Amino acid sequence: MAHGMPSQAYFPFASISGDALVPDSFSTSNSRSEGSVSWLWRLLGGSSRKEKTVPITIPKYPANSGDINLAQALQYGTATGLPQLREFIHDLVGKVYQPAYSDWTTLVHTGNTDGWSKCVNLLCNPGEMFITEDWTYPSALAGSLPYGHHPVGVPMDDQGMLPDELRKLLVEWDEVARGAKRYAISPDPLPHVMYTVPVGQNPTGVTMGLERKKAIYDICVEFDVIIVEDDPYYFLQMGEYTPKAGRAVHGQFSDPSAWLASLTIAPGARLGFFTCNPRFAERLERIGETTTQAPCGFGQSLITQLLTSWKFDGYARWLQGLAVEYVTRRDLLIDALQDEFNLQVSVGTTGSWKNCVVYIAYPKPRRGDAMSEKAALFAQSKPLFSLVPPTAGMFIWLKMLWENVPGFKEGDEETLEVQLWIKLAEAGVLVGPGRYFAHNEEQVSPVEGHFRMSFSFSSEADFKKATKILAEVVSDFFGQSA
Amino acid sequence: MAHGMPSQAYFPFASISGDALVPDSFSTSNSRSEGSVSWLWRLLGGSSRKEKTVPITIPKYPANSGDINLAQALQYGTATGLPQLREFIHDLVGKVYQPAYSDWTTLVHTGNTDGWSKCVNLLCNPGEMFITEDWTYPSALAGSLPYGHHPVGVPMDDQGMLPDELRKLLVEWDEVARGAKRYAISPDPLPHVMYTVPVGQNPTGVTMGLERKKAIYDICVEFDVIIVEDDPYYFLQMGEYTPKAGRAVHGQFSDPSAWLASLTIAPGARLGFFTCNPRFAERLERIGETTTQAPCGFGQSLITQLLTSWKFDGYARWLQGLAVEYVTRRDLLIDALQDEFNLQVSVGTTGSWKNCVVYIAYPKPRRGDAMSEKAALFAQSKPLFSLVPPTAGMFIWLKMLWENVPGFKEGDEETLEVQLWIKLAEAGVLVGPGRYFAHNEEQVSPVEGHFRMSFSFSSEADFKKATKILAEVVSDFFGQSA
Repeated sequence: MAHGMPSQAYFPFASISGDALVPDSFSTSNSRSEGSVSWLWRLLGGSSRKEKTVPITIPKYPANSGDINLAQALQYGTATGLPQLREFIHDLVGKVYQPAYSDWTTLVHTGNTDGWSKCVNLLCNPGEMFITEDWTYPSALAGSLPYGHHPVGVPMDDQGMLPDELRKLLVEWDEVARGAKRYAISPDPLPHVMYTVPVGQNPTGVTMGLERKKAIYDICVEFDVIIVEDDPYYFLQMGEYTPKAGRAVHGQFSDPSAWLASLTIAPGARLGFFTCNPRFAERLERIGETTTQAPCGFGQSLITQLLTSWKFDGYARWLQGLAVEYVTRRDLLIDALQDEFNLQVSVGTTGSWKNCVVYIAYPKPRRGDAMSEKAALFAQSKPLFSLVPPTAGMFIWLKMLWENVPGFKEGDEETLEVQLWIKLAEAGVLVGPGRYFAHNEEQVSPVEGHFRMSFSFSSEADFKKATKILAEVVSDFFGQSA
Repeated sequence: MAHGMPSQAYFPFASISGDALVPDSFSTSNSRSEGSVSWLWRLLGGSSRKEKTVPITIPKYPANSGDINLAQALQYGTATGLPQLREFIHDLVGKVYQPAYSDWTTLVHTGNTDGWSKCVNLLCNPGEMFITEDWTYPSALAGSLPYGHHPVGVPMDDQGMLPDELRKLLVEWDEVARGAKRYAISPDPLPHVMYTVPVGQNPTGVTMGLERKKAIYDICVEFDVIIVEDDPYYFLQMGEYTPKAGRAVHGQFSDPSAWLASLTIAPGARLGFFTCNPRFAERLERIGETTTQAPCGFGQSLITQLLTSWKFDGYARWLQGLAVEYVTRRDLLIDALQDEFNLQVSVGTTGSWKNCVVYIAYPKPRRGDAMSEKAALFAQSKPLFSLVPPTAGMFIWLKMLWENVPGFKEGDEETLEVQLWIKLAEAGVLVGPGRYFAHNEEQVSPVEGHFRMSFSFSSEADFKKATKILAEVVSDFFGQSA
């Protein structure tokens, strides 16, 4: 009689259930010949399409001991969540991520944004800064600013944070108080926490390779920096982009062991997990107890029942299908850009793309242009923007080449980004304005301008429509329409 | 293409559904003659009992515009939650709580513990203290301690916080720095935030009457203190306890308008709401965006569908039934204490119960005691503990009368509470140890000792068993067994 729990008799559901999609709902082949119809069907005819499902049910009371049940899931629970879910996650992390230390553990949280919020509150005292990419997820920054947790950005290339820049930051930190350095924000102690999105980074879409990860890790060990990885896109890794003409149609990812599972079931479920040492996990659990407590029992029980009915192999198969979907989406959007712009493969010369293989977009004659107009366009042609095709995640990051805007002078850039963003919006295309993702707007280089385009949501028809509008509006803006 | 959202095609449920209990699942009469069988049946035969249900379903795609659907509920959403839920909550608060200012608004959160955590982080700067009851919910204190938000307790009686004590605290605050006062914890600025559970308070079970609320409110206005009410038990108000012999069997709460709705559907749902002014709501929404975001979409959609299918009147009816269940539970536990102890109605003389109508528990002869033993017991009889029957909530708060323990001397009390708690646990009865709920253990009066008993969860049979053990163990501990 010690606990303050209501009787489960008063929970207003006798059972809940779901029609769960089968693990092989999505093809693992990138062949559009067989896949395109169903893909379009799904996207355009969404509500009318019959998905292949199996029923799962969670009763209020378990038929057998150990069964997932509402009497437990809807009750006050510990901040560690349902035991069955905990077990699944632990098994998953062991098989997939294989943490390189023996006493790792896992703990549920209510989504990665909340997870990072708990980490920064745990690891930073008020006023302490943390290290992050120059461009990053705005909600990772905004919540901790009131505690004086200011982000300090590290320049990036096509693999994310640059090791040399990170080292420079840490070595020169002592000199910060003298105000001479790039990082001269305040005379704070050396930052000891890093926030990073290593795969399919938001907003730049770039992914750290193994060597880059090792280099960053070694520096962090040397300077005693705790790395907090926010890793929502790990299973949306899709390999290199190949232009349509040279692309093979084949069954991708035939090896399931290369495509294993995360728990990003659906973003609105607000359910994720930490992987960390037991000391951190214990503190994070205490934070959970005094804030969010256990994740929602409806979501926990449905997701756990889904995963335990799919089993590990089924979940791996499901993720393989998803990954191929994202390959197709990424390819469709870049293909559409290829159709509307003259995309030239080149090596970046400045900023984030310096020394990286980039695609540089030039204007293309439009259908109906007279030959003389086409010739004129060709003669005056200057590049509009560059991009690195992402190998993971949901985003393409366009680096605008403002210097080619007629009448451009340094200092105009924010106005140019806002001006073009408004023109695009008025023409019916919404993209993410780059400065929204700056770790510190005041430190954005005066010649930079970016837009983030997402390929995760819209249909192929919308990709085509959006890139057509983009080509018209951007070419006009650069004074390069024929 | 600006948002970072996945396509709903990739959400692994085609639909979810629930067998929802009907609103009149629980009787509004406290008559045990017709109610007791089903009540016991529910509690003891839980899994085998057939509950009366109606099916509700949430499809992935809405059949009609405005329908609740998974494509929306499982997507990244704003921290304001589903529009349909927002509308229901706003309607509910307007009808039930009728806030006494025109520009009130509401905002979802992920359960009251998280709600308070967001409030204290919003309203207090690091190091600022807040006011609370002398005894309160431990998780409301633990989370904010690392930010230096120390609680300062106000003594209570059977209606909660004492206005005179609150005024004294605030008036004398200036003198704190001189270290002479009860509240001399630190030379902090005057606290400007109060945390209070006004109804069925945890752990004491007491409820503020209207006059008390007004008195506390007026003082807070005078000293510019923001009141944060944590109100999970508002609809578990049950009226005065009447001993069994004098209790009328009647249909209670025949007027539905007196029994209206909250959103405490099930504690594991982690879904609640703020009612506040738009300025606070905007800031709380920003905190939500950078931490928990929207509450779990599975839970939101099931609860919203339930509420919109029950409608307001059905929900009010459901809550009436619940309230009567809690009346029955409260009465059963106090009846069981009546059976095992000699409970005498009296007026409290010390501490929290000073001048309150209290029930004082004396030992009772046990079945089988010889007449001489009974006579001896009667002759030596001293009270063991006192209680005020709660009029709301889930808890009974036993105030132990340690001074009647043989060999008692001041300074023993914590040991006595721990000693007796262990003896009870070993005998099979778990109760909440009082000190766990102290706003500050070091400030607990040296003659106080308490246990919290919950009547919300266990069965009638367990109530009987637990009180029998309680009587034996406590009587022995007080050296008063025959």
